[in-house]
Amino acid sequence: MQNIPRVSVAELDAMLGVKHQVLDKGFVRVVDYMGSDSAVVQAARVSYGEGTKTSRQDEGLINYLIKHKHTSPFEMCEIKLHIKLPIFIARQWIRHRTANVNEVSARYSVLPNEFYIPEVSNIASQSKDNKQGRGNTINEEKARQIIAVLTEDSESCYANYLKLLGQNQLQPNEEAITNPSDADGQEGIARELARINLSLNFYTEWYWKIDLHNLLHFLNLRLHPHAQFEIREYARVIFEIVQKWCPMSAKAFEEHILHSKTFSQKALNAISAMAQGKRGSAEEFGLSAREYKEVLIALKLDK
Amino acid sequence: MQNIPRVSVAELDAMLGVKHQVLDKGFVRVVDYMGSDSAVVQAARVSYGEGTKTSRQDEGLINYLIKHKHTSPFEMCEIKLHIKLPIFIARQWIRHRTANVNEVSARYSVLPNEFYIPEVSNIASQSKDNKQGRGNTINEEKARQIIAVLTEDSESCYANYLKLLGQNQLQPNEEAITNPSDADGQEGIARELARINLSLNFYTEWYWKIDLHNLLHFLNLRLHPHAQFEIREYARVIFEIVQKWCPMSAKAFEEHILHSKTFSQKALNAISAMAQGKRGSAEEFGLSAREYKEVLIALKLDK
Amino acid sequence: MQNIPRVSVAELDAMLGVKHQVLDKGFVRVVDYMGSDSAVVQAARVSYGEGTKTSRQDEGLINYLIKHKHTSPFEMCEIKLHIKLPIFIARQWIRHRTANVNEVSARYSVLPNEFYIPEVSNIASQSKDNKQGRGNTINEEKARQIIAVLTEDSESCYANYLKLLGQNQLQPNEEAITNPSDADGQEGIARELARINLSLNFYTEWYWKIDLHNLLHFLNLRLHPHAQFEIREYARVIFEIVQKWCPMSAKAFEEHILHSKTFSQKALNAISAMAQGKRGSAEEFGLSAREYKEVLIALKLDK
Amino acid sequence: MQNIPRVSVAELDAMLGVKHQVLDKGFVRVVDYMGSDSAVVQAARVSYGEGTKTSRQDEGLINYLIKHKHTSPFEMCEIKLHIKLPIFIARQWIRHRTANVNEVSARYSVLPNEFYIPEVSNIASQSKDNKQGRGNTINEEKARQIIAVLTEDSESCYANYLKLLGQNQLQPNEEAITNPSDADGQEGIARELARINLSLNFYTEWYWKIDLHNLLHFLNLRLHPHAQFEIREYARVIFEIVQKWCPMSAKAFEEHILHSKTFSQKALNAISAMAQGKRGSAEEFGLSAREYKEVLIALKLDK
Repeated sequence: MQNIPRVSVAELDAMLGVKHQVLDKGFVRVVDYMGSDSAVVQAARVSYGEGTKTSRQDEGLINYLIKHKHTSPFEMCEIKLHIKLPIFIARQWIRHRTANVNEVSARYSVLPNEFYIPEVSNIASQSKDNKQGRGNTINEEKARQIIAVLTEDSESCYANYLKLLGQNQLQPNEEAITNPSDADGQEGIARELARINLSLNFYTEWYWKIDLHNLLHFLNLRLHPHAQFEIREYARVIFEIVQKWCPMSAKAFEEHILHSKTFSQKALNAISAMAQGKRGSAEEFGLSAREYKEVLIALKLDK
Repeated sequence: MQNIPRVSVAELDAMLGVKHQVLDKGFVRVVDYMGSDSAVVQAARVSYGEGTKTSRQDEGLINYLIKHKHTSPFEMCEIKLHIKLPIFIARQWIRHRTANVNEVSARYSVLPNEFYIPEVSNIASQSKDNKQGRGNTINEEKARQIIAVLTEDSESCYANYLKLLGQNQLQPNEEAITNPSDADGQEGIARELARINLSLNFYTEWYWKIDLHNLLHFLNLRLHPHAQFEIREYARVIFEIVQKWCPMSAKAFEEHILHSKTFSQKALNAISAMAQGKRGSAEEFGLSAREYKEVLIALKLDK
Repeated sequence: MQNIPRVSVAELDAMLGVKHQVLDKGFVRVVDYMGSDSAVVQAARVSYGEGTKTSRQDEGLINYLIKHKHTSPFEMCEIKLHIKLPIFIARQWIRHRTANVNEVSARYSVLPNEFYIPEVSNIASQSKDNKQGRGNTINEEKARQIIAVLTEDSESCYANYLKLLGQNQLQPNEEAITNPSDADGQEGIARELARINLSLNFYTEWYWKIDLHNLLHFLNLRLHPHAQFEIREYARVIFEIVQKWCPMSAKAFEEHILHSKTFSQKALNAISAMAQGKRGSAEEFGLSAREYKEVLIALKLDK
Repeated sequence: MQNIPRVSVAELDAMLGVKHQVLDKGFVRVVDYMGSDSAVVQAARVSYGEGTKTSRQDEGLINYLIKHKHTSPFEMCEIKLHIKLPIFIARQWIRHRTANVNEVSARYSVLPNEFYIPEVSNIASQSKDNKQGRGNTINEEKARQIIAVLTEDSESCYANYLKLLGQNQLQPNEEAITNPSDADGQEGIARELARINLSLNFYTEWYWKIDLHNLLHFLNLRLHPHAQFEIREYARVIFEIVQKWCPMSAKAFEEHILHSKTFSQKALNAISAMAQGKRGSAEEFGLSAREYKEVLIALKLDK
């Protein structure tokens, strides 16, 4: 059998190593990848025994696979990203267990003086109806006060972090320092201990490697309006990368997963009745008030 | 803090160790379990910070979790089953990777003379529209011929398996034999090699341990009409066990997952239009013929 | 087949729900468990086809399994712990991916005013030879200054956390509050945003469920002298629990894993030569200076 | 930041798609890969905070990582193989759960008439001391008889497989057929049912994707003399590929894992005593007879 060249995606090759900015000081950059839409198709055709087809048929196959949750072919593509993100976001992110991670260790390195401060337009009160999220934006003056509090506490924590380490000067931005000299001759405490004084908005970095199936699952959860704004920003940038890397898979994902809607058995019965012209109350359809309202909104029957 | 007794489910305790027959010679039996619906609720309330509530509220919470795919609380329950199943089913089953397995090894033990033979009513031709499944049942006479072929080949493979092992007699049923004596003084070949002569319908056994979230996922795939009949039989029996073990979770699973229906963005637009009394062709709704038909069937608008 | 009662361990049943204190404000408590040493043996005997044996033979089998890394039978036991731990430890802990977790969410709840402060005797300088750990203990006076810095910053961060939430009063200890009232009529910012002002020494809580094989792997890494002191404290307490839960497995783990030593091919050759009375330099044995020294220490030949 | 070209390995690129034969009809071929030794180093340096170094230092770092079981950097490399293998080997192989798989489905396709027959020199009796493996080779005449039995049964099973499918002719080798025509007008039974008549030595195919860490773990288990000969053959060929792909990692793996030896606490005490010139019995060292013998063999003190 002849040598077969590696699958590559020109648009992705052109951006390898390039930083896509996220939030005030974070970034995402593509380090490497394996496969593309064609690798999904190749794997599916091993399982389902069909030969090579046209590009149009490839698109149909990918749609079919996504729609019917035949997920294993999407595990045949892999991407590796270098990401800089605040610790409170890293804590949400790491819950996605089916990925590989190498994170900067603050036991080895001194973290730089970089912390996340939200923009005025992203500071909001607790949501009244979404128990976990943000509601109305706060007025600008108050938002500026909040930014001041966050900034002062971060600066103060960092200054004391350095003091605990026995150092006098602020770290230059953008680079963790592995072997800090004891500039002033004062011995500090161990890095693993000093870092506990840093707050959750400080930035960390990691290499993160994941297959396309698990990445789409990550994106589905993290592009959701109920996800925290800051992680949604990362998901948004990563999804743009996926659209370049695997355009057919990205499109099928949008149509059949991201913008899809699942109805329970009772909701389905209600919808079927409505499509046949019947109308009824939540009770008549056996639905809770909340689920009934969701159905009406999904069908654009609420007014 | 005081000692808290272990969560137990009386109905499940009463059936520990009892075999539930599946197919002609297979079985499922519950060996042990951890938690129940209450453990799901307990874990969810840690995450979402709510205190203990009434049983009715527990049910609402479980519904909410299932509906919104908050899956981690369901990972807090675990069940361990002892299962006897044909090898071709074991090969499908093992693809569910998030489980723990200890299987009988035919490198150590001589497998007993037990193989699966389908009943007359389960022998069917290849499906015309489902590329992977069965279509019409075959007439009884032909089915009996097929059963005869399968039985003869299995018996013959087993007889030669024993011969390869240097043994003269058939194994008694129901028990693998670890240290077969060379009854006739003839040395046979290694067990790991002799077993390659057995066919895929021979039975194997394993202990299989899985958490409730992953078990519900298994059941959703394996209760599906497109799953192979033989594994559906196991899924059916296991789902009955789950209904006794975690009745609220089982009910929510049926309503929001097993009997739910997901619509793509375009299908949703079509449904919304139909609920408002509009009718149109697949093209007008931007749907493929297949997806259009699925929508009509789901809404009971096909005739 | 007859009903078989559930495996239970009296000593563990007696401590279900009871808090074992760790660090200044943390704890570990056993919520539930499945199986014990007998479940390991049961699973191994399915695979390797041997019948029930004496307790002495069980111990021998467990030793054999641990020694030869036959890990799957140890996956048949499961334990669920409720743990309260500082966030910087939670960040290390969560890297063990083969476990189930439900953590308190500070998007839903207001965290209580509880943070970790090390004891004087645990405050140490950066190690000179272990790049990631602690070296010499710092003198008491300086240690007290460090404690004062950490305490003040934590208190200040928490006070501002409450201010950001629009609240005036400190939270009572020991309980996260889900629906804080806006006591003073001031609207605060969303909880998911306010929490970013907390430092990494604040306590969080989770339910953590893991199988025995993965737990022993966790303990092997986290009982290691190079693990951070604070996580070692948790590992120590959890290992005491495992010794009660699965005493044979715990003992075999100590003998064959925790206190074992692995030698590379070249080190093995050197040891063999030494056991035959030969002595030689690192170069003569083809070892690096570091590996040579390790061999001498392991054999108690260094002086 | 500038665009950074993709990591590639010329020697691997030259063999992409090329089949490496294994056993009588099996093969392994590399489909794609991500990263190399340099990616391991890159990931490790993110975690441990060190900058770029010389190639010699890279080698030292990789040795250090392997020796101290810092496994996560090795997860940053990924390889995808296309493998053709007998079903009984596929059943062992799939137990490695941390991998992605797409296998030919005999529910969709008709399998070709290809089955594994061992060579005369690989047919052996059950081992006397290794309960799971092969012992002495059997004499050639008897081996030829065994080959005849295996071949006849395989041919006969396949002929009946085709008959069950309603087909008259043997399938051409090397290709599964997805849409068999009913050449003789006879309707056969469903493919998912007919295949249960095939024996465990029939060949299947899959795409298998795994990261370097998990691949090395696979190789460590499957290169072991106690692994079944047939899977060892695949492991041997795959290890040769790894030696080309990541030569430094492969070398460190051989030195510190594959050819290493782990001693229990008591064995270590015994070795230390021996290195100091003491000799003693198993009892005196508190070792079992078996472990004592292992120590003597490892130290080349047995005679």
